[in-house]
Amino acid sequence: MSSEREQENPPSSPKHFNQTMAPLAIESATSAQEMLDLEKNGHAERAQWVLNPPEPPSLWRELKDCMRETLLPQCSNFLSSRNQTGFKTVISVLQAMFPILTWSRNYKATKFKNDVLAGLTLASLCIPQGIGYATLAKLDPQYGLYTSVIPPLIYAVMGTSREIAIGPVAVVSLLLSSMIQKVQDPESNPAAYRNLVLTTTFFAGIFQASFGLFRLGFLVDFLSHAAIVGFMAGAAIVIGLQQLKGLLAITHFTNKTDVISVLKSTWISVHHYWNPHNFILGCSFLIFILSARFVGKRNKKLFWLPAIAPLVSVVLSTLIVFLTRADNHGVKIIKHIHGGLNPSSVHLLEFNNPHIGQVAKIGVIVAIVALTEAIAVGRSFASVKGYHIDGNKEMIAMGIMNIAGSFSSCYVATGSFSRSAVNFSAGCETAVSNIVMAITVIICLEFFTKLLYFTPVAILASVIISALPGLIDLNEIYNIWKVDKLDFLACIGAFFGVLFASVEIGLLAAVTISFVKIIIVSIRPGTEILGRLPGTDTFCDVDQYPMAIKTPPVLIIRIKSGFLCFANANFVKENIMKWATEGEAKDTKGIGKRTFQLVILDMSNLTNIDIAGIACLEELRKNLVSNGMELAITNPRWQVIHKLKLANFVGKLGEKIYLSVGEAVDACLNPKIAAI
Amino acid sequence: MSSEREQENPPSSPKHFNQTMAPLAIESATSAQEMLDLEKNGHAERAQWVLNPPEPPSLWRELKDCMRETLLPQCSNFLSSRNQTGFKTVISVLQAMFPILTWSRNYKATKFKNDVLAGLTLASLCIPQGIGYATLAKLDPQYGLYTSVIPPLIYAVMGTSREIAIGPVAVVSLLLSSMIQKVQDPESNPAAYRNLVLTTTFFAGIFQASFGLFRLGFLVDFLSHAAIVGFMAGAAIVIGLQQLKGLLAITHFTNKTDVISVLKSTWISVHHYWNPHNFILGCSFLIFILSARFVGKRNKKLFWLPAIAPLVSVVLSTLIVFLTRADNHGVKIIKHIHGGLNPSSVHLLEFNNPHIGQVAKIGVIVAIVALTEAIAVGRSFASVKGYHIDGNKEMIAMGIMNIAGSFSSCYVATGSFSRSAVNFSAGCETAVSNIVMAITVIICLEFFTKLLYFTPVAILASVIISALPGLIDLNEIYNIWKVDKLDFLACIGAFFGVLFASVEIGLLAAVTISFVKIIIVSIRPGTEILGRLPGTDTFCDVDQYPMAIKTPPVLIIRIKSGFLCFANANFVKENIMKWATEGEAKDTKGIGKRTFQLVILDMSNLTNIDIAGIACLEELRKNLVSNGMELAITNPRWQVIHKLKLANFVGKLGEKIYLSVGEAVDACLNPKIAAI
Repeated sequence: MSSEREQENPPSSPKHFNQTMAPLAIESATSAQEMLDLEKNGHAERAQWVLNPPEPPSLWRELKDCMRETLLPQCSNFLSSRNQTGFKTVISVLQAMFPILTWSRNYKATKFKNDVLAGLTLASLCIPQGIGYATLAKLDPQYGLYTSVIPPLIYAVMGTSREIAIGPVAVVSLLLSSMIQKVQDPESNPAAYRNLVLTTTFFAGIFQASFGLFRLGFLVDFLSHAAIVGFMAGAAIVIGLQQLKGLLAITHFTNKTDVISVLKSTWISVHHYWNPHNFILGCSFLIFILSARFVGKRNKKLFWLPAIAPLVSVVLSTLIVFLTRADNHGVKIIKHIHGGLNPSSVHLLEFNNPHIGQVAKIGVIVAIVALTEAIAVGRSFASVKGYHIDGNKEMIAMGIMNIAGSFSSCYVATGSFSRSAVNFSAGCETAVSNIVMAITVIICLEFFTKLLYFTPVAILASVIISALPGLIDLNEIYNIWKVDKLDFLACIGAFFGVLFASVEIGLLAAVTISFVKIIIVSIRPGTEILGRLPGTDTFCDVDQYPMAIKTPPVLIIRIKSGFLCFANANFVKENIMKWATEGEAKDTKGIGKRTFQLVILDMSNLTNIDIAGIACLEELRKNLVSNGMELAITNPRWQVIHKLKLANFVGKLGEKIYLSVGEAVDACLNPKIAAI
Repeated sequence: MSSEREQENPPSSPKHFNQTMAPLAIESATSAQEMLDLEKNGHAERAQWVLNPPEPPSLWRELKDCMRETLLPQCSNFLSSRNQTGFKTVISVLQAMFPILTWSRNYKATKFKNDVLAGLTLASLCIPQGIGYATLAKLDPQYGLYTSVIPPLIYAVMGTSREIAIGPVAVVSLLLSSMIQKVQDPESNPAAYRNLVLTTTFFAGIFQASFGLFRLGFLVDFLSHAAIVGFMAGAAIVIGLQQLKGLLAITHFTNKTDVISVLKSTWISVHHYWNPHNFILGCSFLIFILSARFVGKRNKKLFWLPAIAPLVSVVLSTLIVFLTRADNHGVKIIKHIHGGLNPSSVHLLEFNNPHIGQVAKIGVIVAIVALTEAIAVGRSFASVKGYHIDGNKEMIAMGIMNIAGSFSSCYVATGSFSRSAVNFSAGCETAVSNIVMAITVIICLEFFTKLLYFTPVAILASVIISALPGLIDLNEIYNIWKVDKLDFLACIGAFFGVLFASVEIGLLAAVTISFVKIIIVSIRPGTEILGRLPGTDTFCDVDQYPMAIKTPPVLIIRIKSGFLCFANANFVKENIMKWATEGEAKDTKGIGKRTFQLVILDMSNLTNIDIAGIACLEELRKNLVSNGMELAITNPRWQVIHKLKLANFVGKLGEKIYLSVGEAVDACLNPKIAAI
């Protein structure tokens, strides 16, 4: 029957059906009474539909489905290719694992030109940033450059995003240093600290890859957008404050990251010793970089200007220091950077470390934060260009690139907000821009590290600070405030958590507030009175639709929450009793005693109910009956009607279960209609 | 207009309107085209209703309303009585505070007879239980009797329940001893331990009273029914195991409460020294009490038999020990019980204790558990007798009775499951039965404590064990399993938490599982396909209603969750895209290429949305458009449409917002209908 009707294309709406059929009905002299009987039978039939749905899937079944859906797509890729020959199977598996095999076939010279341009622009930004972020992570400068070599190369062959620029990023660097230095002090034993960073990188990679393999991509969704915006803004300010160390050439700086400790430590240090050269040098180049960005924003053709400004600053400032030998006058310089390609670091991974548990924990946190940033970046650019990013494939790519990174002296790499934007505006076409960047960094590592001997530390601080405004999205914060006040609370919670406590507490605050928000919104015990919209058979909230008309002898109430459970059922019950009895009182004062005969509970919103919810419905029914009213329920959802039947509530209700509010109202008023 | 329509009683449903009006319409020769135009105008008008609802209350407004609703009812009681004279005001305030003033006016001799009978039955059960629970709480036996005097007297004048029997209860006694002994060892310094128990009682009273004053009754709802059932069952077993100490007369018993520690400790002790007299004495009287209960259950007239069996056991066993001087043969006896009325204990409260913070924390936990038990008991009996219990008034009464109790050597009292049931079946009429019980206990304290010198400890263990089966509600556990598997998980989580970890961990597990359940149910990212129910204009889930007919060129999807937020929005989006594109693929294999033109997203279920949810809708729209489909939304709720408007999503959707799915389908198919 169902498929038969489906063939009628288009199926006409019953309303139109009624209209066109009405004359026929009258011609065949069907009496109004027969119509009513027909209607009544329809009601009864539809009530049976409500009462006897098929069994909903059980919890075990749902769990099984969920597991299969999570794990099987991987297998089914292989299984579906069973019909193909062995060679083709290998090819298709390889293509699934390495997207580069697919897109490289259509790769053309024009694309390559654009990619080279974007890659070079990227490298000019990446080199100074990499050195800066390495110092933020409390590692030697060359680790930032190492991290810009291996991970981008691996991502280029495995990743699905075309715009992401892979390498070290500010927030992850800060997170690593702030958490690992609690386990191992970087000043007293830099080698042990570095080994822990590499071990953390290994763990982060393992976690990222397994999130992808087990399709746990949803873990990344658990950091709400609003919380991330707040967290990033807070982290940006914290990172900026950390740069006071480089900008003011402070030797004894606090290990804490909160605003108050940092400002206090800075105040004491500056009071103690103060060399203005570093500050003047750093600030002037900061102003230069920011002006270059301003010009670049105004004139889209000069997009390369802000991108190369940091490198120009590094070269210029290094020249200035070299020529004036300012390092003899208190200007701090980087000094020796270890040149040459990434050395192997497999032997440096410490799995027997007594703090291995903590290191693994840090690995999880870093893995999630790094993924969150990368996937947010990737999704936003993919959405602009209109293609789809496979979250789980991305995670596997990121995981493998970080595992490989941990074997080759890289720390945690991920997709950078600022550099991806530069890559995009430089017109990159594919991940080849990442390869070009990596090769450029290799050349730099091989030949030019010695030239960075005289680079002033203050310039690195300027480069980092100049990248921070991109992390503070004031527009989005305003937007969040405008649209959703609770989301804004999550946003500023994360912001102040990072700013005044620590990075981890900020993250914790973000996650906690996000979930508390879900609980508050989900169990908020709301009820609304419904009325009929004039000219329709639709019943709506009388507050939202002031034109809706109440149907006095019947009180229609809808539960606003999606889950009637222990936490809100009592409130809902008391609210409904208040409506039912207060409405009575009001009418008594007005035009004679007019009580409600029937309370209709519209359950459309309820997707689920629990034992406590059912018990409350039962109490509500008893209370209403003892007040001389009846309870009817309409449109219970699958799980709800199933549970109500199991709990024997349906039997107690009698026949008062309807498909829609309209039918319930009709059924209540029917005797009167028949009497007209 | 609205009130005008309201006067038409009963308002006829538009469907009936159509039917009765149809002949008229044809007589006046309205062409089908005009009808369609009318219909179209109706659509447009109704779309405006959806788009321009009044402003929903802002977060601040809601907070304010919530605060006023929470705090004002107390004040309004006083304010409403402003018109009355001063004397009457005082009277009505007093009556509100002390319900006894109201019901005592109708108190009659017949009621008193019933209450005395019930009170005496209660006392005969309360005296042995009180002594037993005091030992469970690791206090001297007389504290259990003290606690059966002051709190019931105060509750009788302030409480609203007629059946609750107030006094010490097993679970609270266990909770107190298991938590306070971590702060202060009861063996090494019993006086200090007792002082901390009294201080905890004071705090618990303060918290309970303030929950009531600030109308925070919902806190009690946060322990879900299922979790309480599991917790109680686990606690009953733990309490039973603790009685092994008394039953086997073990001197060195573990302080831990988990099954494994207790069994291990028992095994070691019994191995070391074993006196069968205690065990035989205890077991034989346990069998006696249980048989008495069995007889009482079979024959309702002998309801008093199980109630007095414990007292009879105490008297008999005391006599036996006294006559045989069995205490010289290893039978442990209570020995000295301090007689006389409750001494003052104001000077024993320790507010300068270094552990005061922990004591206050224990106070909160005990306060909530005690209230949960009392209110569950009170509600269930009130529901049987058909009257209403005011949760907040109950809390104030409980709070004040515990504060007063802490001043008069009582520990935390609350409503007992087992004794309230006895009170009810003994035919109590009012709280006078509590007063009779208290007076009986006073008489016992004054004159009979010396007679309890030879009472064997094993009998107290039997009395406690015999009360435990009432805490294990196997029927309810089976019912929970049958109706709701997730609730069952909360139930056994609490059960095993209490059993194998500790009482606090069991409670924590119960609360955590309950809230995780809310989160899982609320954000479970479900979508369902809707079809039209034959003969109606209602669109329902095709899985729940297999007779529903799909409307092929239009894909109608409803979001199953109540809150589209960061945690589920991405999943929902990907699900919808899968439906939209897979449906396409399936049709291609079938009867020629037939793609969906329109995806209608029914938002009826969504009570709220957040920034991430809106962003996902926006992405969904883009993805659908790039696949050649359009997106329409129907029936957005108040908060949702408000936020969608604020976020400018409505503008991007164009005109594709409808009041109901039916209207959206009509609007999509309209040109074709017009062509027929």
